[in-house]
Amino acid sequence: MAMARGRFLTVEGTEGAGKSSNIDFIRRTLEGRGIEVVLTREPGGTPLAEEIRQLLLTPREEAVSEDAELLLVFAARAQHLSQLIEPALARGAWVLCDRFTDATFAYQGGGRGIDSGRIAVLEDLVQGSRRPDCTFLLDLPVELGLARARARSAPDRFEQEKRAFFERVRSSYLARAQAEPERFAVIDASVSLAAVQAQIGTGLDRLLGAAHG
Amino acid sequence: MAMARGRFLTVEGTEGAGKSSNIDFIRRTLEGRGIEVVLTREPGGTPLAEEIRQLLLTPREEAVSEDAELLLVFAARAQHLSQLIEPALARGAWVLCDRFTDATFAYQGGGRGIDSGRIAVLEDLVQGSRRPDCTFLLDLPVELGLARARARSAPDRFEQEKRAFFERVRSSYLARAQAEPERFAVIDASVSLAAVQAQIGTGLDRLLGAAHG
Repeated sequence: MAMARGRFLTVEGTEGAGKSSNIDFIRRTLEGRGIEVVLTREPGGTPLAEEIRQLLLTPREEAVSEDAELLLVFAARAQHLSQLIEPALARGAWVLCDRFTDATFAYQGGGRGIDSGRIAVLEDLVQGSRRPDCTFLLDLPVELGLARARARSAPDRFEQEKRAFFERVRSSYLARAQAEPERFAVIDASVSLAAVQAQIGTGLDRLLGAAHG
Repeated sequence: MAMARGRFLTVEGTEGAGKSSNIDFIRRTLEGRGIEVVLTREPGGTPLAEEIRQLLLTPREEAVSEDAELLLVFAARAQHLSQLIEPALARGAWVLCDRFTDATFAYQGGGRGIDSGRIAVLEDLVQGSRRPDCTFLLDLPVELGLARARARSAPDRFEQEKRAFFERVRSSYLARAQAEPERFAVIDASVSLAAVQAQIGTGLDRLLGAAHG
């Protein structure tokens, strides 16, 4: 069997899509195949990037400009890439990241209405040609996701946003998946956890086949 | 006399150039002419932007990537522009800012070697067409400035950098001033404070003449 090479996997989805459980499932599945998995998240993933995450999530009196928010997200991403993601991929590990740049296009772009061209400028500046090898999009109706999320935790600044916002986020994610069908695996996350994991398992099998082929 | 319109003034210079004293002199001079002056600084100028400043200046174990630093600087700038600078200019106040984007070109570009084209992409993205109306560059030999700065305060992360770094910063500032002689007033800051202020006073007289003309 050929030696596996490092892959960059991201998991995306709106609130209540079950990202945490399914990320854990992906990690366990890969580790069961003897793969080193580096589990991380955005914004965050390094001490400085986590401090930036706190700046973004802390509710504050001061209105936060769209550009400031966008640039903070990409500052955290630049740090995350240089200190964690790129070194891990370089040594052959698989990086499994809870949200990445698709979330910026979906939340800041689709959700808040920032011109996606401005986001793309920053994506190219910060990432060069680096893109995820595979993105699992956990998709479900907004109403169901919000009901799940409300049952689970106190709302943060983003979760307080209105349902219309999440509809725009979902649409934006689905449009991106449609534009890049090779990279995206769209998972129906409205069904039972077992049924969701069966779908993810199929995606992972395909990925592992390609990695070892 | 015609009503004065708001102007955006910035003060730049390497360590020990006497920015604080001379910014105070500019403020007093303008206020003596009945102008509302909004005194501010970069990185900073709003609560969020000051929190970003703290992230930048705090010494840390983690290596900070060049891009992360650059994006944090522009995140603070975006917030500063939208929450403080643009509203002040819009109501006719003069904004007097301790460092602005010329410092990014000089320190991150000239000093740290980040491609100035990358900085220019962010400048255009964040500022649109907004540029300072006048920039006072307090220029002096690096050795003299460092001696003054050492006598004054404990070194922060930037002040610990080597002399060669500050030579590159100074050269970068001077090159920018040469490229935009209409915007820059280069002040010889190696002479006595009184002699420095005489030079600044001449620049302010010209600016006030233009503003009221």
